[in-house]
Amino acid sequence: MDYPLPLVTVDAVLLTLRAGVLEIALHQRDRDPFKNATALPGGVVHVDEDGDTEASIRRVLREKTGFEPRYLEQLQVFSGKDRDPRQWSLSVSYVALVPAAELEAATQADFRFVSVDALPPLAFDHAEIIAAAVARLRGKSSYSTLPFFLLPERFTLTELQHTYEAILQTRLEKSNFRRKMEAWGVLEATGEHVGGAQRPAQLYRLKGFTLFDRSVG
Amino acid sequence: MDYPLPLVTVDAVLLTLRAGVLEIALHQRDRDPFKNATALPGGVVHVDEDGDTEASIRRVLREKTGFEPRYLEQLQVFSGKDRDPRQWSLSVSYVALVPAAELEAATQADFRFVSVDALPPLAFDHAEIIAAAVARLRGKSSYSTLPFFLLPERFTLTELQHTYEAILQTRLEKSNFRRKMEAWGVLEATGEHVGGAQRPAQLYRLKGFTLFDRSVG
Repeated sequence: MDYPLPLVTVDAVLLTLRAGVLEIALHQRDRDPFKNATALPGGVVHVDEDGDTEASIRRVLREKTGFEPRYLEQLQVFSGKDRDPRQWSLSVSYVALVPAAELEAATQADFRFVSVDALPPLAFDHAEIIAAAVARLRGKSSYSTLPFFLLPERFTLTELQHTYEAILQTRLEKSNFRRKMEAWGVLEATGEHVGGAQRPAQLYRLKGFTLFDRSVG
Repeated sequence: MDYPLPLVTVDAVLLTLRAGVLEIALHQRDRDPFKNATALPGGVVHVDEDGDTEASIRRVLREKTGFEPRYLEQLQVFSGKDRDPRQWSLSVSYVALVPAAELEAATQADFRFVSVDALPPLAFDHAEIIAAAVARLRGKSSYSTLPFFLLPERFTLTELQHTYEAILQTRLEKSNFRRKMEAWGVLEATGEHVGGAQRPAQLYRLKGFTLFDRSVG
């Protein structure tokens, strides 16, 4: 090659919903550059073992967190000569939507959860990557089933409505929300219920839901 | 570094509209791999001169075609160990929307125009990159001003309607189309007219249009 090659990394924006707040799971870097700084989980592409960059980010997440996100989407490339003190670098960023319980159960992970609207100082250009991820989620949520992936596989209509409200940053009117969801035809009643004997709430799931293959958007 | 680095390239999907058909501008490769094959214009990132990958693709297009696209959007990364016979490689792909007259006037370019629905055999995974670009354009066009960028700066409502029809692959009803465009508020009458004295057609432009800074979507 005539030119030195850029450093190629992958980074994941892990979005989750905790107590009605859209949060991101960050971790503390254990090496330079930016040692001890708060950052997105990420790593360098390993050309001898990763089939492509999606395989890279799945490997990194398995190694650093012990879990595989159900919803993972390529976001955008961030690149340039100044973003990494080591050399000209390029990060292929991904967005993962993860139910909070799954993230919290990832025993290998040592996450710090922060609201996407109150980020601490971050390593590299990770604040910019997160802003792009949140904009993508909010932009797509008004016309897609993306928010479903922040919920457990089975959920109540109230939980679903609160999820849409947290992402869209607005209150939705209950009967109108339910009518729209019904007309959309993406919900399937499971027949199971939760809550008291007086007013049990039906549990729903996303129709045609499969654990790894679903792509939305 | 512990690992060999991937080869990093940029490629551009140049979309244009000619005689009512959505076409792509391809060229013939002048070097290996895939020497003489039809391909997207692209090149290797030059870390000593490119500020980031968008600067890379703009430089490549300037060098290979002599022009700077008005609308350029990062599409997606295509990567892997098998897509380039040289080594594990990664392409950051871009979509450019270009009025046909601008492309045809790019004197340095030696383009071959083909319909996006009838692609010849192509180098690398370029057919897959084009499919993603066309899907992006079609997906966004029903709710954005993206199609405007396939037109000259000033255009008639009939030309605008035909552009939307070619992209969305459907016929639109004239008075309904005009009513929607008016309600949208993105059009600005220029006061100029074209056509015969009997039924001159008003020329419009996109409101707030600036030559290089506009971003849409």
